[in-house]
Amino acid sequence: MTTIETVAKRFAEIQREICAVLEMADEKGKFGEKHWSKEIGNGITRVLSNGSIIEKGAVNFSFVKGNVTPRMEQFLGEKAGKYAAAGISSILHPQNPWVPIIHINVRFFELDNGICWFGGGIDLTPHIIDFKDAADFHRTLKEICDSFNARFYPEFKKWADDYYFLPHRNETRGVGGIFFDWLKPGAENNFQELFNFTVSLATAYPEIYSVLMKKNGFKPFSERGKKWQQFRRGRYVEFNLIYDRGTKFGLESGGNTESILVSLPPEANWEFDYTPPPGGFEEKTLQMLKKEIDWINELKS
Amino acid sequence: MTTIETVAKRFAEIQREICAVLEMADEKGKFGEKHWSKEIGNGITRVLSNGSIIEKGAVNFSFVKGNVTPRMEQFLGEKAGKYAAAGISSILHPQNPWVPIIHINVRFFELDNGICWFGGGIDLTPHIIDFKDAADFHRTLKEICDSFNARFYPEFKKWADDYYFLPHRNETRGVGGIFFDWLKPGAENNFQELFNFTVSLATAYPEIYSVLMKKNGFKPFSERGKKWQQFRRGRYVEFNLIYDRGTKFGLESGGNTESILVSLPPEANWEFDYTPPPGGFEEKTLQMLKKEIDWINELKS
Repeated sequence: MTTIETVAKRFAEIQREICAVLEMADEKGKFGEKHWSKEIGNGITRVLSNGSIIEKGAVNFSFVKGNVTPRMEQFLGEKAGKYAAAGISSILHPQNPWVPIIHINVRFFELDNGICWFGGGIDLTPHIIDFKDAADFHRTLKEICDSFNARFYPEFKKWADDYYFLPHRNETRGVGGIFFDWLKPGAENNFQELFNFTVSLATAYPEIYSVLMKKNGFKPFSERGKKWQQFRRGRYVEFNLIYDRGTKFGLESGGNTESILVSLPPEANWEFDYTPPPGGFEEKTLQMLKKEIDWINELKS
Repeated sequence: MTTIETVAKRFAEIQREICAVLEMADEKGKFGEKHWSKEIGNGITRVLSNGSIIEKGAVNFSFVKGNVTPRMEQFLGEKAGKYAAAGISSILHPQNPWVPIIHINVRFFELDNGICWFGGGIDLTPHIIDFKDAADFHRTLKEICDSFNARFYPEFKKWADDYYFLPHRNETRGVGGIFFDWLKPGAENNFQELFNFTVSLATAYPEIYSVLMKKNGFKPFSERGKKWQQFRRGRYVEFNLIYDRGTKFGLESGGNTESILVSLPPEANWEFDYTPPPGGFEEKTLQMLKKEIDWINELKS
């Protein structure tokens, strides 16, 4: 097997593992499975609908290849003749507004000139921010990062702040997480270490979410909470369709539209010039949708 | 007054006229009014929420100016130092799935090098296509176009087919209409004629919609019809956030976010890999979401 085939094989296994862990936590929902194959490559899209906690959850695996067009060069940030890419991406939308939306993507790119790299990101988008949950989330990510390279967490946390951001709203998407790209094997970390890093993130992902599902999956919520969730989902749609690089890359490179846009929430609302009532959970959440919050240490001080 | 001030003044008046005609047809809903002012310019956003027929309707007027950055050059398709633009844009989302979504935009651009032009578009997006309604809509547009220039309708109808199109879905947004840009005063039509052309479109817009409101505004509809409407609204969101030039121009040039994204529906749904039941109104509608349908003449043959 070539390098990318090895990565793709493991990623495909992890897709199943993620689904199995999430099904166990949801206790009701089951992931369906849809294989697709197009000129660009193929993939497996697994979707869970109307679970007891997850309203719409998707876990994608894809393995694609193609020519590096000028437009693709912009995405890749590298020049080459051909590229191949294997990746996992997942977004989970819960029923309950007290459970956050979560997202992960890990990907491996290989060019025909021998250059290869990992990229990815994992971020949490609470409809209603709980500072302690956000701190726990960041602490878990930092521990995984630190076990590979002490530079990863601070650099990738900042990158996430900048990437998961809606300029037109002057809001972060949620409480951030980590984002990285062009992570190439080199003096600091060899291929196997970087591979293990992405695998560690992907296997931690459903565990992190299971804790959050168990904590608030059945917490009572008001109509006001649900309404707010629909507005926050609207922002999620805005981010994914306007800024998300994976969505753009997927749609422009001829990927499978339904598998790419499965990230969108089951329902989203928009209301002109909505201003939440002063002092409520909505306003408190908006005040925390900022870059450069040191989630791990801020509570201690 | 300079030319653009004259245009802006008339556009602002038309905004009021559009709202007045729509309020009359709705019989219940009233347009609110919000003035905004930013570095780029100012505008008035008028929104009607939860009318008897219109669920969320917006009519925007804006008058903006700024430097022509390299990015702005791409939008304008012209080089210059400074630009100014005045425009009306409107989108109406009805409660009833048997009433279409409608959209209009008319705009006037003026550069500091003396170049000026009109642009705009009007298109109809039925959730459920009625061929005769679509033909009537196109016939009305053709009559307006023909009274100014016989080349307008055929050229602008084709432009609309190409513009109001979602490549990732291989679907037109709806039954099209007309789209035009860089319409400069010249040998064929002088400034006043082109100005009158955009004014004619903008004043016809609420009249066209009033007929459609009256026809189906209170028609009984099923849960299935409402569900389908929510999916079609999802497609509308996709078009507006991924492709719409006005949205991109507005957000990137520092426009008023709430006034730009007021075009989004009150609610939209997405379901993975949804396939409508065979032979139903959904499937029939999907089959008509194609370019190059000759709406006016096809029924006759």
